Amino acid sequence: MEIGKQSIRLEEPVYVESWASVVGKKEGEGPLAVFFDEIETDDQLGQNTWEEAESMLQQKAARLAVKKAGCTPEDIRIIFAGDLLAQSIASSFGIGELDRPLYGLFGACSTMGEALSLGAITLSAGHGERVLAVTSSHFATAEKEFRFPLGYGSQRPLSASWTVTGSGACVLNRKKGKVKITGLTTGKVVDYGLKDSQNMGACMAPAACSTIAQNLKDFGREPEAYDQIITGDLGYVGQQILLDLLEKEGYQAVKNHKDCGILMYDQETQDTHAGGSGCGCSASVLAGYILPKIACGDWKRVLFVPTGALMSKVSFYEGNSVPGIAQGVVLEWADGEVEES
Amino acid sequence: MEIGKQSIRLEEPVYVESWASVVGKKEGEGPLAVFFDEIETDDQLGQNTWEEAESMLQQKAARLAVKKAGCTPEDIRIIFAGDLLAQSIASSFGIGELDRPLYGLFGACSTMGEALSLGAITLSAGHGERVLAVTSSHFATAEKEFRFPLGYGSQRPLSASWTVTGSGACVLNRKKGKVKITGLTTGKVVDYGLKDSQNMGACMAPAACSTIAQNLKDFGREPEAYDQIITGDLGYVGQQILLDLLEKEGYQAVKNHKDCGILMYDQETQDTHAGGSGCGCSASVLAGYILPKIACGDWKRVLFVPTGALMSKVSFYEGNSVPGIAQGVVLEWADGEVEES
Repeated sequence: MEIGKQSIRLEEPVYVESWASVVGKKEGEGPLAVFFDEIETDDQLGQNTWEEAESMLQQKAARLAVKKAGCTPEDIRIIFAGDLLAQSIASSFGIGELDRPLYGLFGACSTMGEALSLGAITLSAGHGERVLAVTSSHFATAEKEFRFPLGYGSQRPLSASWTVTGSGACVLNRKKGKVKITGLTTGKVVDYGLKDSQNMGACMAPAACSTIAQNLKDFGREPEAYDQIITGDLGYVGQQILLDLLEKEGYQAVKNHKDCGILMYDQETQDTHAGGSGCGCSASVLAGYILPKIACGDWKRVLFVPTGALMSKVSFYEGNSVPGIAQGVVLEWADGEVEES
Repeated sequence: MEIGKQSIRLEEPVYVESWASVVGKKEGEGPLAVFFDEIETDDQLGQNTWEEAESMLQQKAARLAVKKAGCTPEDIRIIFAGDLLAQSIASSFGIGELDRPLYGLFGACSTMGEALSLGAITLSAGHGERVLAVTSSHFATAEKEFRFPLGYGSQRPLSASWTVTGSGACVLNRKKGKVKITGLTTGKVVDYGLKDSQNMGACMAPAACSTIAQNLKDFGREPEAYDQIITGDLGYVGQQILLDLLEKEGYQAVKNHKDCGILMYDQETQDTHAGGSGCGCSASVLAGYILPKIACGDWKRVLFVPTGALMSKVSFYEGNSVPGIAQGVVLEWADGEVEES
């Protein structure tokens, strides 16, 4: 049922039954390496093009999540999938091969939050037993799509993030799982007028703040009611802005904030500047790191908030701003009960 | 609840409370001209760029649908929106201004079917009272995105369709309306290996056949159980292929098929070759023509099947095929009862 202004409380929770993460070489050299299911040694995954490589990443993550759920693709009622590429071709070509009913999504790097949300809504309506949520990104396809040909070797500003090569997939189930989805906060487009597409953390931080603050108001919670509040890919620049904005909303010194883009790479040795980004960043960190931490009870309740920068080459060339959006998903440990605070 | 292999029967129907259509100059000179709410005389809508014009189209349709529902944007719980442009910028910039929670969708020209479906699913789960579904397309933005600069004056093959400049929006409501959504059939990606992006009707017809045939099987109906089966933008070439494919599925001589792309333009005088296409084609014909026909009881039950061609410039240049997808929505007259056949 709806609560507050932008949130949904799932009276009967939807469970995350299984999850899988597949990442590229650089991601497999970072601090989360031990947590990922598969690390590709060839970022082209044996394919002819970068786009096919990304499709393969997504397909691998999806198939692995299905396998971990002990089922086959035929048991998945609907797939919710998306990526960053124009017309979402990584999803159309990768996920199409599973031959399942598909709803394609676009929320830029917030898409995993959207996929989990719409999957959970569908199951909460009693439509189907299992659905799959999956998103991906790839460093080389994203550079080609949004920035410069790799061969230029162009310099990146310190505020720029590094698009994660990776995919994460989750099977949602109405009846069983170690993690449950208990609430959703649907994001609004938030535009502070920033135009620097090489500083997406700053562009997305206001949207992250909007969704987090609204989630706290709608559910009547303080930040401490969550063991962790984890954004998608704000990176170091965006994180600081988010914390400043949350202070202005009355949430002083939030200590339990993490960001998938910061978690993904080692700042000292991996030279990614502001951190990781991309649809595949929050998805692979969710499936590799966050869900297992909740499943074992280390974290009892997490607010997962993937963040997206809404822009294209065309909108950038035409001088438009880069609005942000952030989709909030409340994830809880399903083996125990969490006291409402 | 789920029925058959790919369909959902909405036990408590969701209603279409209001609808609005806004189209461009050429569409306003076609056979449906008298049905549209607004016809723009300036295809740039007073904006600086074609993309801003498309955003404005979408925003106008959305605001008008909301107004017709007798409410304000604040009464809309969630917006489901999409368009054809890379990273869906027409939606991000147009719909963002309504300041409502947003889920962005991408299903190419099938997006209106997806938006209605996910909106109906959300309401059927009891989440919110009202949601809005809206999509758009624009001839000039689509030519720029997928084909040639307008100034080239390049010749179009006879199999090519003409992207509709238009937008359609619907307010869905849990409790009231003259049209109800009673069922959904989620489409699969169907790829016959066709690579001709100037013959999208042929690329999409197999997906349309797949969704229509599955809908008939899942609901246990014959084609005649629908007053009309209306696809999105197959055009003349795709329509013939669809009818041939349906014959192979055992549905001989389907007589009640219409296509929004065929309905939109006058074949004799408007020189669009295969017909109209685009996310805005099925959406504006739905809001301008189909829903009013159902609302007054002329048609008691319609299977609305927007069709999408899943491709991008990059997938085309890299030699990929153009897979199709089609999303089915069962629309029924809400003032009377329809006998199950």
